[in-house]
Amino acid sequence: MRKLTVVILTLTAALLVVFVLSYRSAGAQGSSYAEDRALIEDLQARYMFALDFRDIDKYLATFTPDGILDIGEGEMKGYDAIRKAVGGMPKETPAKDAPKIRPAAGRHNISNIVIKVEGNKAYGRAYWFHYSNPQRNSATLDSFGHYEDEMVKVNGKWLFSKRRIYNENVDKWATTPGVNPCW
Amino acid sequence: MRKLTVVILTLTAALLVVFVLSYRSAGAQGSSYAEDRALIEDLQARYMFALDFRDIDKYLATFTPDGILDIGEGEMKGYDAIRKAVGGMPKETPAKDAPKIRPAAGRHNISNIVIKVEGNKAYGRAYWFHYSNPQRNSATLDSFGHYEDEMVKVNGKWLFSKRRIYNENVDKWATTPGVNPCW
Amino acid sequence: MRKLTVVILTLTAALLVVFVLSYRSAGAQGSSYAEDRALIEDLQARYMFALDFRDIDKYLATFTPDGILDIGEGEMKGYDAIRKAVGGMPKETPAKDAPKIRPAAGRHNISNIVIKVEGNKAYGRAYWFHYSNPQRNSATLDSFGHYEDEMVKVNGKWLFSKRRIYNENVDKWATTPGVNPCW
Repeated sequence: MRKLTVVILTLTAALLVVFVLSYRSAGAQGSSYAEDRALIEDLQARYMFALDFRDIDKYLATFTPDGILDIGEGEMKGYDAIRKAVGGMPKETPAKDAPKIRPAAGRHNISNIVIKVEGNKAYGRAYWFHYSNPQRNSATLDSFGHYEDEMVKVNGKWLFSKRRIYNENVDKWATTPGVNPCW
Repeated sequence: MRKLTVVILTLTAALLVVFVLSYRSAGAQGSSYAEDRALIEDLQARYMFALDFRDIDKYLATFTPDGILDIGEGEMKGYDAIRKAVGGMPKETPAKDAPKIRPAAGRHNISNIVIKVEGNKAYGRAYWFHYSNPQRNSATLDSFGHYEDEMVKVNGKWLFSKRRIYNENVDKWATTPGVNPCW
Repeated sequence: MRKLTVVILTLTAALLVVFVLSYRSAGAQGSSYAEDRALIEDLQARYMFALDFRDIDKYLATFTPDGILDIGEGEMKGYDAIRKAVGGMPKETPAKDAPKIRPAAGRHNISNIVIKVEGNKAYGRAYWFHYSNPQRNSATLDSFGHYEDEMVKVNGKWLFSKRRIYNENVDKWATTPGVNPCW
């Protein structure tokens, strides 16, 4: 009888271990499509705040160390290359001759987010558009395009391994007309 | 003793089967609100890519075979009817007298997505807006409205069973003023 | 033998109970980031419908009873204070001298949604922009800014406990230039 009880308890314990492990990996640890997509959407939104508010360190932190940014001029790879390109963007400071006017604000927005997840890799397609307030009391839509992204999950965090940006304002940055870049 | 061991192992196996089945249906297979909403958001975004890039087959594939599209002119039901209506939309080809200018791009965007899920049925409300670049080097917001959607889950995939489009640019396509179409 | 069978069945039942309870708390009840984010996104979208369609009761219902709204003029706390402020917004009714023209439509949109969840509290950052159709047959982007939100989960429902709105159209409502309000 004791032997049997040991067998039963051992099996019960084993089952509980299997259950808890599986539960953890499914729930809070992000192995479902919803969990991965939620984390990637958050990444994509934080990227925009960092970009528009010139927070270059947080911007870089959305990429892997060997991440690639390509705005249509070839691939920039790694933090140093991206920092050089993006860090050189003009800050929104007041003009010298108009020191009392606050700087204009410009904002990039992401929409129509499509995400395909394959294990620790993900592929994204999304639209972006940009508006600004050169007159300070109104708003002007000024450009748009789309993203083609690759993301990887590193230690439970999703990061861009590659972001290719298409911009419909400039011939050589525009996408091929009539070809759906999405699946 | 052997008989008892058989009983124990059988029960253990049964428990594991129950667990795995339940786990699958909860996790990767989309039975939570997050999972359903994530899949529906992806559907809504892929719809936009297919629409704007004139990918009529992928566009139709976002509907059920007896799906309904209604832009304010009555219901178009099924792939053939929808294909006829949407496939007839003008392609963005260059004007005859300006063959060297790339075609203008126009893009539909979805935002403010509200989704209510009831089992394998879902109800959606969302805003849409459209911009284009007739000058190629700038952007123009030109129209907006909202969607009233019904979706169904078929073999784990969410599809539109009905999409009703309201457009505030045209009197007879506009929504009733002052009535919140959402819950 | 019977005693043993009872032991086995009891353990089996206990395991099933543990499993079902854990499953419920993980799945439909929203304890994952994806589940919380999905519910909060839905809240943020319903807020917009209620605001734009002047549905003041549904608008208030997105806040906790002691919720705070701050558009840059100090905190308005609780349903009565918020109702007074938002309920006083002009309805989109036709002008007296043009009774046959339908009222113009104006729409607020949310994008770039960043959400951090800590138990039953959540912190949000997001962009907003507004467009309208004063001419009825076109669209005009007219203002934008961002949200800084605090949310709480009450009985499984997420609600705003505080929404601070920044608006880049007005000096005293604009955000501090060059400071990323996000993490």
